[in-house]
Amino acid sequence: MNYQTVLQEIEKEIQPLLTQGKVADYIPALADINPNQFAMTITCNDGTTYSVGDYEQKFSIQSISKVYTFTLALKAYKKELYKRVWREPSGNAFNSLVQLEYEAGLPRNPFINAGAIVVSDLLVSLYKEKTLLEVMQFIKELSHNEAIEIDDGVATSEMEYGFTNRALTNLMKSFGNIHNKVEDVLEVYFNHCSIAMTTKELSRSMLYLANNGVDPISGIEVTTPSQAKRINAIMLTCGHYDASGDFAFRVGLPGKSGVGGGIVAVVPGKMSIAVFSPALNEQGNSLVGTKALELFTTKTGLSIF
Amino acid sequence: MNYQTVLQEIEKEIQPLLTQGKVADYIPALADINPNQFAMTITCNDGTTYSVGDYEQKFSIQSISKVYTFTLALKAYKKELYKRVWREPSGNAFNSLVQLEYEAGLPRNPFINAGAIVVSDLLVSLYKEKTLLEVMQFIKELSHNEAIEIDDGVATSEMEYGFTNRALTNLMKSFGNIHNKVEDVLEVYFNHCSIAMTTKELSRSMLYLANNGVDPISGIEVTTPSQAKRINAIMLTCGHYDASGDFAFRVGLPGKSGVGGGIVAVVPGKMSIAVFSPALNEQGNSLVGTKALELFTTKTGLSIF
Amino acid sequence: MNYQTVLQEIEKEIQPLLTQGKVADYIPALADINPNQFAMTITCNDGTTYSVGDYEQKFSIQSISKVYTFTLALKAYKKELYKRVWREPSGNAFNSLVQLEYEAGLPRNPFINAGAIVVSDLLVSLYKEKTLLEVMQFIKELSHNEAIEIDDGVATSEMEYGFTNRALTNLMKSFGNIHNKVEDVLEVYFNHCSIAMTTKELSRSMLYLANNGVDPISGIEVTTPSQAKRINAIMLTCGHYDASGDFAFRVGLPGKSGVGGGIVAVVPGKMSIAVFSPALNEQGNSLVGTKALELFTTKTGLSIF
Amino acid sequence: MNYQTVLQEIEKEIQPLLTQGKVADYIPALADINPNQFAMTITCNDGTTYSVGDYEQKFSIQSISKVYTFTLALKAYKKELYKRVWREPSGNAFNSLVQLEYEAGLPRNPFINAGAIVVSDLLVSLYKEKTLLEVMQFIKELSHNEAIEIDDGVATSEMEYGFTNRALTNLMKSFGNIHNKVEDVLEVYFNHCSIAMTTKELSRSMLYLANNGVDPISGIEVTTPSQAKRINAIMLTCGHYDASGDFAFRVGLPGKSGVGGGIVAVVPGKMSIAVFSPALNEQGNSLVGTKALELFTTKTGLSIF
Repeated sequence: MNYQTVLQEIEKEIQPLLTQGKVADYIPALADINPNQFAMTITCNDGTTYSVGDYEQKFSIQSISKVYTFTLALKAYKKELYKRVWREPSGNAFNSLVQLEYEAGLPRNPFINAGAIVVSDLLVSLYKEKTLLEVMQFIKELSHNEAIEIDDGVATSEMEYGFTNRALTNLMKSFGNIHNKVEDVLEVYFNHCSIAMTTKELSRSMLYLANNGVDPISGIEVTTPSQAKRINAIMLTCGHYDASGDFAFRVGLPGKSGVGGGIVAVVPGKMSIAVFSPALNEQGNSLVGTKALELFTTKTGLSIF
Repeated sequence: MNYQTVLQEIEKEIQPLLTQGKVADYIPALADINPNQFAMTITCNDGTTYSVGDYEQKFSIQSISKVYTFTLALKAYKKELYKRVWREPSGNAFNSLVQLEYEAGLPRNPFINAGAIVVSDLLVSLYKEKTLLEVMQFIKELSHNEAIEIDDGVATSEMEYGFTNRALTNLMKSFGNIHNKVEDVLEVYFNHCSIAMTTKELSRSMLYLANNGVDPISGIEVTTPSQAKRINAIMLTCGHYDASGDFAFRVGLPGKSGVGGGIVAVVPGKMSIAVFSPALNEQGNSLVGTKALELFTTKTGLSIF
Repeated sequence: MNYQTVLQEIEKEIQPLLTQGKVADYIPALADINPNQFAMTITCNDGTTYSVGDYEQKFSIQSISKVYTFTLALKAYKKELYKRVWREPSGNAFNSLVQLEYEAGLPRNPFINAGAIVVSDLLVSLYKEKTLLEVMQFIKELSHNEAIEIDDGVATSEMEYGFTNRALTNLMKSFGNIHNKVEDVLEVYFNHCSIAMTTKELSRSMLYLANNGVDPISGIEVTTPSQAKRINAIMLTCGHYDASGDFAFRVGLPGKSGVGGGIVAVVPGKMSIAVFSPALNEQGNSLVGTKALELFTTKTGLSIF
Repeated sequence: MNYQTVLQEIEKEIQPLLTQGKVADYIPALADINPNQFAMTITCNDGTTYSVGDYEQKFSIQSISKVYTFTLALKAYKKELYKRVWREPSGNAFNSLVQLEYEAGLPRNPFINAGAIVVSDLLVSLYKEKTLLEVMQFIKELSHNEAIEIDDGVATSEMEYGFTNRALTNLMKSFGNIHNKVEDVLEVYFNHCSIAMTTKELSRSMLYLANNGVDPISGIEVTTPSQAKRINAIMLTCGHYDASGDFAFRVGLPGKSGVGGGIVAVVPGKMSIAVFSPALNEQGNSLVGTKALELFTTKTGLSIF
C-alpha cells in the first residue's frame, strides 16, 4: 500500500473539518494558535517516513509527553509503579478531583493529569533537581534529535494558571501519594507538558512502541517487550481521557492525545503515526487529528481489531 | 505452535489458583456451584478446536450473553443504537447507579448492566413478545447448535433477587430511556443472562468476531467488518467492568466476562477462546479464567499490542 | 398582635408573586392545577384560628404526609427507628440515588423520598394490609376530622409514573433496607402522599408539634415532649430537601413542604401554620408559600432564632 | 433555675465519657493535647456567668473562628456575600472536594472549610495585608479582651500540613471564586483558625448572637437583628459539618464546633454557652462537649424546639 497516497487523500478529506473545532484556551500561550494547521507523519519500522502538511512545524505536545515520563518511570520502578498509579480508564474528565477523592489519592491511570503528576513525583524521587534534564535527555534519545526543547512561554503560562493541577497535587499530597514538594513536582510536570515537537519528531520517537520495546532503527532496547505491550494497552484504554472508548471504537489503535492538538498512534509491528491539528473536539482531543486517524485505519485496514 | 500443548501447560499452571477466588453468591442458583472447575476451548478460524478440562460442562454464561444481544441490536439499529447507549468505559462497578444518574439515564456502554438492559429494551421494541425466541434463535445460529437453552432455575433466581437491576431499569425509565414495560424488558434480560453453554459452544459462537463479522466456517455474514471491529473495540475497553483496563493490560485481547465464571476472548484474524472457572476475583471476573488467558497470550505472543 | 391583620397584609403582598412559580408537572393529576391559588391558616395553641384565601380548598399534601408517618413510626419503634433511617440533611435533591448508593441504602432522613419509603416499610411490617387504614385513622385523629381522604386520581397517577421512587425502593431492597414487598410498600407511600387536605385541616393536625407532643385542645398525648422537639429539629434541618438551609435562613421555623404547594410550619409553644399555593420555586417548594412564611416571621418576630 | 448547679451536674455526668473520644491528630500541634480536659461557661444576656472545669485554659478555637469571620464579612458585603458562598447544609464531610467540584467552586456554606476560605478571600479583598489585624481587632472587641492571641505553633503546623485546604483553595481559584493569591488567603485562614481562647472568653464573645445582634452588656450593635438570626440559622443547619442534623436533634441549639474540642451554642434571647473537651467523636466534633450541651438542654428545657 502506498502510504503517501493515503496521507494525501486524508489531507484532502479533512479540509472541511479544519474550521469546526476549538483551540485550547485555558492558557493564553495556547489560545493564540492558528487553528487551521494540519500535519501528519508515518514512521515505519524499517525507517521509511511519509508526511503531509506542516510536518516541520513545532507544536506543544502537552499530554503526549506523559508517554515518555511513564516509560521512564516504568523502566525504573517496574511493577512497583502500580502501587502509586493504577491502570484503569477513568470514566471522568481528565482533571476530575471527584474520582481521586473517592479513591483516596490513587490516580486511575498515568495518562490523566493526576496520574502523570504522580509519575513526575516518582521521577523527582529518583533524579532530584536533575529530573527535567533526565526527561529531556530521554526524549532526545528516543527522537535521535538533540534539538528538542521546552517552550518557555507555554511553561510559564502553565505555571501561572495551573490551579486545577495544584489542587490535584495538594489533594494527593494530603493522601500521602506525593512524596516531594508540590512545587518541585509541578515544575517538572508543567515543563515536560510544554515540550515542542513536530509530527516527524513525534512519530520517530514512539517507534519503540511499534516494535516490542526496541527502537527498530538503532536497535536500542528502550523497554522489555512486555512493558511495550502494556504501555500500548494503557494508551488504548486510557489515552484519550473520557473519549478513550470512542477513539478505540473509531480508530482502533493505541494512541495518546494532547490539548496542543497532537495525537500519536501505534500500529504494533508496523509503524508509529503522529498527527497535528490544534482545534479540539468537545472531549479535548484534536478534532481533525482524530478524524485523520479514523480515515487512516479505514483506508488501510490497520486497526488492531 | 501447538495450541493443545499450550492449553495443557495452562491447565497445569492454574491448578494452585483454583481455590483462591469466590463463587458469585448474589443468587442461590449460582452460589451452589463447585468452585474447582476449569475448562478452556480454542476455536480457530479454520475450524480446528483445542480443549482442556470440563469443556462439555454447561455453565451460566451471564453477561457474556450481552455480546449476542448487542450484536443483534447493532444489526437492526446500526448507528442509531448509540443514541440510547454510549461506548465509553464506565470507571465504576458494573451495577453503579451513580454514574447513570449523573449522566441522565444514558448508560456508558452496552456491557454494563444498565447498557445491556437498554439493549434488551431496543430488542423488545422490535420483536415484542417474540424477543426471547429471536435472541435464542440468533445464538443457536451463531453456535450452529440447536441444543442451547436457558437454565430456568437461574432465570427464576435472577427474577426473584434482581432488585439492583430493577432499580437501574426504573431509573432509566424515569429518564425516558426505557420504552417498554420494566418487567417485560427485565424478563428478556434475566433470561438471556441465564443461558447455559459449554466453553466449546461459546468459543464456536464468537468466531465471527475473529473474522471481520463473517463466520469463517459457514461463510454466513453476521455483521459488517466495521461492526465486528467495533464490537471488539468495545469489548476491549468495557468488557470487564471496572477491571477492563487491567484485562487489556494483562491479556491484551478483546474479551467479555460473566459472573458465572466464563470469559470469551477474540484474537482478530485467528481464533476465539472461551474459558470457564467459577471462582471470581475481587472485580467479579473469573480469577482462574483471567490468569489462563494471560498465560495464553504470554506463551503465544498473540496479544493485539 | 393581631394575626388576622398580619395574614391580610401577607395576602396582599404576595399577589405579584402568584404568577412566578411553576406547578409540579411530574404527574398529570398535579399538572392541571390552577397556579393562582393561595390560602394560609394559623391555629394557635389556645384553639383560635386565623385564615385568608382559599382555606377550604383541598389540595394534595404530598410530602407533608411524611410528618404523620414519621410520627407514627417513631411512636412505635422509638430510637430503633434510627437504625433504618438517619437524621442528617441530605445535601442533594430529594430523589437522589447517588447518596443512597454511597451510603449503602440508609436514607439520610425521613423527609426525603427514600427515608419516607423506609418509614412506610416499617409501618407495613407493623400493620400489614391495614397500614393505610392505620395511617388514615391517625391523621383523622390528629385533625379531629373524619372527612379526610385520599385523592384516588392522584394516587393512580403516582403509581403509574413513579419510576424514580421504584428505583429508590429497589435499590434499598438490594441493600436489605426494605423488608416487605416493593409494591406493598409503594402502595402505602403513594397513597399517603395523595391525601387531600385544606390549610385549616393541616394546621390543626400539626398542633401537637407546637405543644411538646400534646394536642393542646384535646389534651391527647401524641408523642413525648422529647420526640416532638426532635421531629421539629428534623423538620428544620431536612424539611425542604435541598433548600432546607435556605428555609431556616429566610423563615426561621421548623417546616415541611410538599410538591402539591403546601407548607406547614411550627412555632414551638405558640402555633401551627399552614400555607398553600401550588406554583413551586426551583427547589420544588411553594414559591409563594415560602415567601408568605418569611413575611410572617419578619412581621411577628416569631423566628426561633 | 440555678445554672451553676446544672453545670456541676453536667461536669459529674460527663466524667465517664472523657476517655472515649480521640484528639485531632492531623497536625502535631493539636495531637499532643491532654484529652481529659473539660470546661464549660455560660454567659447570660444580663452579664452573669457560670463556669465549671478548666475555664481559664486557652485552647485552639479552630473552626469556631469561622463565626467571627463570617460575621465580619456579612457586615461588609451584606446579601452580596451569598453570591460567593451558599447557605445549605453540605451533606458531606467538612473538607470534601467532591461537592465543590460538582457545584463549580461555590461552597455550600460559610462553616465548611471551603466556605470559610472564600470568606477569608472576601476579607483580604477589603483589608489587604491588614486583614489578620482587622479580624483580631474584631474578636477582641467582641470579647472585650485585648489578650486574645494566635497560637503561632498551631498556625505554623497548619501551614505546613494544610494540603487539603490548599487543594480546596486552588480548586475554587480554578473556578474563579478566589480573587486573591492562594497563599495570602490561606495565611489569613490558617491564622484565624489558630486563635487560642478560654470558654469564658468564647461565651462572652458570642453574646451578640443571643441578643439580636446587639452586645447586651456594652450595647454595641454588632449586626442587624436579621443578620444575627440568620447567622444562628446557618449555625443550626451547618455548624457541625456532617453531624449538623444530629446536633440539632440532640441539642436543639444553634452552635459551632472546632476540631480543637470547643463548641459554642446560642440560646436566643437568653445566653451564650461555650464548652471545651478536646477528644472528638467520629464526626470530628467534641464528644464530651456535644454530650454536655445535650444534657444542658435536657435539664433546662432551653432547646429552641
